[in-house]
Amino acid sequence: MTLANASSFAAFDTTVFAYESAAFLQPIPRPARSEAVVRIQPKYGSEAVKVTLRYFWHGAADAPTVIVQGGISASRDVCSQGGNAGWWDDLVGNGKPLDLDCHRVLSIDWLAASDLGGGISVSSEDQAQALVALLDALGIAQAKAYIGSSYGAMVGLALATLAPRRIGRLVAISGAHRAHPLATALRAIQREIVRGGIASGDIAGALGLARQLAMTTYRGAEEFAERFDAAPEFRDGRFHFPVEDYLGAAGRKFVARFDAQRYLSLSESIDLHRIDATAVQVPCDVIAVSSDRLVPTTDLRELAAVAACATYHEIDSIYGHDAFLKETGRVGALVANALSCC
Amino acid sequence: MTLANASSFAAFDTTVFAYESAAFLQPIPRPARSEAVVRIQPKYGSEAVKVTLRYFWHGAADAPTVIVQGGISASRDVCSQGGNAGWWDDLVGNGKPLDLDCHRVLSIDWLAASDLGGGISVSSEDQAQALVALLDALGIAQAKAYIGSSYGAMVGLALATLAPRRIGRLVAISGAHRAHPLATALRAIQREIVRGGIASGDIAGALGLARQLAMTTYRGAEEFAERFDAAPEFRDGRFHFPVEDYLGAAGRKFVARFDAQRYLSLSESIDLHRIDATAVQVPCDVIAVSSDRLVPTTDLRELAAVAACATYHEIDSIYGHDAFLKETGRVGALVANALSCC
Repeated sequence: MTLANASSFAAFDTTVFAYESAAFLQPIPRPARSEAVVRIQPKYGSEAVKVTLRYFWHGAADAPTVIVQGGISASRDVCSQGGNAGWWDDLVGNGKPLDLDCHRVLSIDWLAASDLGGGISVSSEDQAQALVALLDALGIAQAKAYIGSSYGAMVGLALATLAPRRIGRLVAISGAHRAHPLATALRAIQREIVRGGIASGDIAGALGLARQLAMTTYRGAEEFAERFDAAPEFRDGRFHFPVEDYLGAAGRKFVARFDAQRYLSLSESIDLHRIDATAVQVPCDVIAVSSDRLVPTTDLRELAAVAACATYHEIDSIYGHDAFLKETGRVGALVANALSCC
Repeated sequence: MTLANASSFAAFDTTVFAYESAAFLQPIPRPARSEAVVRIQPKYGSEAVKVTLRYFWHGAADAPTVIVQGGISASRDVCSQGGNAGWWDDLVGNGKPLDLDCHRVLSIDWLAASDLGGGISVSSEDQAQALVALLDALGIAQAKAYIGSSYGAMVGLALATLAPRRIGRLVAISGAHRAHPLATALRAIQREIVRGGIASGDIAGALGLARQLAMTTYRGAEEFAERFDAAPEFRDGRFHFPVEDYLGAAGRKFVARFDAQRYLSLSESIDLHRIDATAVQVPCDVIAVSSDRLVPTTDLRELAAVAACATYHEIDSIYGHDAFLKETGRVGALVANALSCC
């Protein structure tokens, strides 16, 4: 099966059962996870490069495609399929707000500097170009919608600027036309921690600590106060505070699944993102969260005010930047509504 | 001159001029900067220890004493004297809100773990005990007021709990009855950065980076946005963001004047602070700043509501936790008013 005709086949679970029982009645099953080689011109590179895009494309056969992209640490596995859990299972699936009975979801693993060769910086526009090239490869003239959270929203805005006809609607959750300078400061420190660990040889310790710092920016202050207002414990020669133990565990968990160079590259890509919000002409839902300290409501209000055809929605939540993962009811209702409009 | 009769002498500039021209007309000049050996029982220590307190006592002769303490990086040099600049010169001096024409200001250099011997943790109560012992040594039955900012406010609250009769009034600016768990998280990460630097041998780099992280918590998000919303510069093989350059310079400046172990000790002391706000019976002004993310207004409102005799004041400012250093007009008016009440 070549990429050119891939879109004419149904997306199947590639289980043994499906193969054995139905293979002779159905078209050849198309794996939900696949790769495509596409050509892009990196913003910070001098020449075009071929990159291998790892993507996920899954849902009802021949149904309209909805692109979904999350934060820098999210993978293409948006929803459960073939035994893998997805990072947005509450919102994407059969009968869910992004209903796979009548939609197909498409997502890529973010490109990092190593994918572009020569270690050049990756831009949100590079990711958008790659997505456009993937739409070409899959024979999709226009995705019904693009739903992006955090960095995914930034890439969606870049895509809306670069190739507005390729998406029918944009849902931008907790991601704006630029990184807020205070958030840039906190990520610059995370990158400095990681570079320090690479220099000293303690990469795991440094990446874990950088992740700890990132975690402090993902949740609202109120939630921290509710969960961790307790006395410290004295052990191993010093006091350990409850919040410290929580962050330490989260940091170790992250190190097991993420790479330091990829982290440096994607973290920088957020801070390099800067698009002209007035150039966003695609119908757009901008979703902000009251307690988000990383992407403050002021920036998202400004985006919605300046973009040509945007509606601003604000979710009152204690979950800060992570609300797109936690406030599934309210985010789901906005997603379902956006999809019903296009 | 012994400590017992020190308070009967005027606090003089110990300049050669003062000595040469006026020595025969005046009592023996008493240096504004001095030391006292006092005995305290550290909260986390098994036995009482003698500590050497470095203090500053300066202002009108025989005038009522006002204790002023700042954040963990502030020294006893509250105001200019003898060629040294003070960290609160806008508020403390002749004709200033804390008017040295009719007051004397008293301040100590914070005790750190090394002062207690054996590297035990320092509590806000230890600092309060040391201040009470210093009042004894100087023959001051009651300080007219205690004005504390940040960690200084925490120590003031500890003092108000420990020895309420020794201060006539407490002004607590941007410091509460406990550290907020999100702020604790950010300081725990700073300490981990410093411990990592001690382990790897790059203490200066680590202390500088910890300070950078601290700096992100001292100012309001809006001020960061106003100052640093500009494109990055590519140099030395990577992009540098404007806010990153600012923080880097601030970090290096701090390393030149501060010690890593002292930083670890005082940073931990903030997080160990936890007093029963209902035990604060001293008349008290609680001053909060709208944009302070380190000590949120919610915590200071709670403190003021629970303390027996407290008035809550909120300053609307973009300067966040640093407002006590920047909003000198509004903080000064509150300080002057507090001093006129007692």
